[in-house]
Amino acid sequence: WGDQASSTGGSEYTSCHSLQESLLSSASGYSNYRGILNWCVVMLVLSNARLFLENLIKYGILVDPIQVISLFLKDPYSWPAPCLVIASNAFIMAALYTERRLSVGTISEATGTFLYFINLSVILCFPAATVLTVTSMTSVGGVFALGVYTIVFLKLYSYMDVNRWCREIRKAKARTLSRSHSCPSVSRANGAAAHALVTYPGNLTHRDMYYFMFAPTLCYELNFPRSSRIRKRFLLRRLFEMVSLTSDFHFRWMVPTIQNSMKPFQDMDFSRMVERLLKLAVPNHFIWLVFFYWFFHSSMNFVAELMQFGDREFYRDWWNSETVTYFWANWNIPVHKWCLRHFYKPMLQRGVNKWVAQTAVFLVSAFFHEYLVSIPLKMFRLWAFMGMMAQIPLAWFVGRFLRGNYGNAAMWMSLIIGQPIAVLMYVHDYYVLHSSQAQGGDVRTPPSV
Amino acid sequence: WGDQASSTGGSEYTSCHSLQESLLSSASGYSNYRGILNWCVVMLVLSNARLFLENLIKYGILVDPIQVISLFLKDPYSWPAPCLVIASNAFIMAALYTERRLSVGTISEATGTFLYFINLSVILCFPAATVLTVTSMTSVGGVFALGVYTIVFLKLYSYMDVNRWCREIRKAKARTLSRSHSCPSVSRANGAAAHALVTYPGNLTHRDMYYFMFAPTLCYELNFPRSSRIRKRFLLRRLFEMVSLTSDFHFRWMVPTIQNSMKPFQDMDFSRMVERLLKLAVPNHFIWLVFFYWFFHSSMNFVAELMQFGDREFYRDWWNSETVTYFWANWNIPVHKWCLRHFYKPMLQRGVNKWVAQTAVFLVSAFFHEYLVSIPLKMFRLWAFMGMMAQIPLAWFVGRFLRGNYGNAAMWMSLIIGQPIAVLMYVHDYYVLHSSQAQGGDVRTPPSV
Repeated sequence: WGDQASSTGGSEYTSCHSLQESLLSSASGYSNYRGILNWCVVMLVLSNARLFLENLIKYGILVDPIQVISLFLKDPYSWPAPCLVIASNAFIMAALYTERRLSVGTISEATGTFLYFINLSVILCFPAATVLTVTSMTSVGGVFALGVYTIVFLKLYSYMDVNRWCREIRKAKARTLSRSHSCPSVSRANGAAAHALVTYPGNLTHRDMYYFMFAPTLCYELNFPRSSRIRKRFLLRRLFEMVSLTSDFHFRWMVPTIQNSMKPFQDMDFSRMVERLLKLAVPNHFIWLVFFYWFFHSSMNFVAELMQFGDREFYRDWWNSETVTYFWANWNIPVHKWCLRHFYKPMLQRGVNKWVAQTAVFLVSAFFHEYLVSIPLKMFRLWAFMGMMAQIPLAWFVGRFLRGNYGNAAMWMSLIIGQPIAVLMYVHDYYVLHSSQAQGGDVRTPPSV
Repeated sequence: WGDQASSTGGSEYTSCHSLQESLLSSASGYSNYRGILNWCVVMLVLSNARLFLENLIKYGILVDPIQVISLFLKDPYSWPAPCLVIASNAFIMAALYTERRLSVGTISEATGTFLYFINLSVILCFPAATVLTVTSMTSVGGVFALGVYTIVFLKLYSYMDVNRWCREIRKAKARTLSRSHSCPSVSRANGAAAHALVTYPGNLTHRDMYYFMFAPTLCYELNFPRSSRIRKRFLLRRLFEMVSLTSDFHFRWMVPTIQNSMKPFQDMDFSRMVERLLKLAVPNHFIWLVFFYWFFHSSMNFVAELMQFGDREFYRDWWNSETVTYFWANWNIPVHKWCLRHFYKPMLQRGVNKWVAQTAVFLVSAFFHEYLVSIPLKMFRLWAFMGMMAQIPLAWFVGRFLRGNYGNAAMWMSLIIGQPIAVLMYVHDYYVLHSSQAQGGDVRTPPSV
């Protein structure tokens, strides 16, 4: 029919419809939504620009960074969180000197393990005790200090493991050498490529230790992959993102919602509780997303670019995850890598069952979540712990019953709804605790400001 | 090094880092963000559920559809917009009967063209005149009625063109037949596949006409591609989306922002004007996006599924567009197809320059945008017209200077910022006009509620 039409010359009646699905229908199989990501960035930039302009019009410039630093230098004891962070250097040095002793054989492996055990225990207990006893410590400062100590703990644990592995290799090599006397040294075997590589006892320097401490990874290696140069435009873009996104961590817009949620929760008015929860879910989730981008993309890439640290895989495509397990294994790659290398695989090697090992990983993760929340709030309620442990039945349910886009939607749902439930639980308990202490009816400002 | 480690058995020190980019960095070339689309859907469903619950708690059930219909039946003259829509059937019938006369040769081609000219002109002028003169017509009702008439205009124009092409083909065929007497008929040549196909004068039925009028396309064809069956789950999902998304067209949350914008605009306070504009941009853009999904995905797919209309390409991947031209050619495929088939290509065939033809398409589009805004508001300001015409220099600028993600970001920016500028312009003029008429200082509610 169409061919006939074109043969008539003047008219051009060709069929202009064909049997096809819309792109957004899941049946179309289409998945390129790079533009939607750009949309998110543009929306974020615009809403930040507006907020900045609004604050500038209303209040002028408020925060002067030089003033903040000079205030800290004048009276450091009223700033306990930065003091705690500075004190963490002592534990880092303790680990380095233990390793140096171990490398020359001044102390035995057993003594070394014991020293590490003491050191790592103190790293977890000392800041917790400080946060719980020092009254001038704010909740935000407490979370920050405990976060830093947790990172140092994980890094030093990795440092200990890797250095022990290196000693084992050295011993094995020495045994081989004493038997055959013909094995060439590693650096010669690998040729020119291995020229600049650091080998075992040579890595026990302050410089190497602090490179690892600041590097955006939790897993120690003697020779990290390095990028060839610092890309200045990349660095500036990440810096711009870091600075402009910090303005989004203003939790103030969540406070009225949280305060209004207290009454339905005390009265146990179910439909109002759900309504409040959903109202809280959106800003809470938005803050979490901004935090994710700010921390895992902007900040970590900025630090990595500055240190020429080559491995930028700080997250994988968790946004497409169709199971809960995939989400937990892909949203936070540094922690995931650490768990795999220093906790999960060693357990498997000791013959532990796969499912037991997975549950143990969730248990440790739940412990650290609780550690980072309960201690700064000075309130032990296990909501964060239970939130993490609830992931195990959830993972089973989603993996069993939901597939494809439904599984993905379930993952988002649990993320969007799960977090504000935990937040409201803590705030509710905090509110009940403090209002019963004060015996007054006034609504107190929650601690998360 | 890694191999040596594994050869020692007990230790398992293999390199766990490799040189790679983060997925969100543009250097990674990654583009699968299907999950982000699911995120948008989940967020929309949750915020709608919350809004529904909040409204239910506050007001109970407000709108009773049976009551609305019985109110209309009691007093139809106070509902001018639905009356206008019902009246459009007269023009559809006029087109059908003109075509029937033309097909049997009772009237000449010239007379037919003249009758169509009258009919199509009245289709544009009659509702405009009604909207401008009937005082009980609201702005929303006016936009709705004019929108329906514009669609009918475009559809009947396509109907006219296609039927004329069919007559030309018939004439050409008749000429060939009279010369050779050996050409087989089309239906026999195409065999069984062509069995159910409608051929030219057989399409001039009421049934065929109304199928085209309700079909989600502006381009007429004698034989549309048809889907094999109505998928009930697909239909229900689209219906659910249609119903639940309508609650997002509550423009009420934009009204305070618009009202607060009036003072800076009168005082010409530039920084405050920008701040207001950015504040308005987000809800305005959100409503536009929801409208896009509601109209182009949910509603059109719903109607198409119900009518077993096969071609579901109502939009293409405009969200990835890196030039302004690509956006305009891909966000609204029915209109784009119509422009290409009945306006752009005929112009090219008449020897018009490509750039002139493109500008003419933008001009016609700008005319209809202005038609749909100015007449319901009873205010001729050309802001919509100028907004559309501004796309031409913008397209040139973006195409010339911006590439890839930057071009995409520029497209989003022009979409997010461009629309609220036009909205504010109209509201500002409406406000000035009405406040100068009333001579009072009270802020009037803008008409877009």
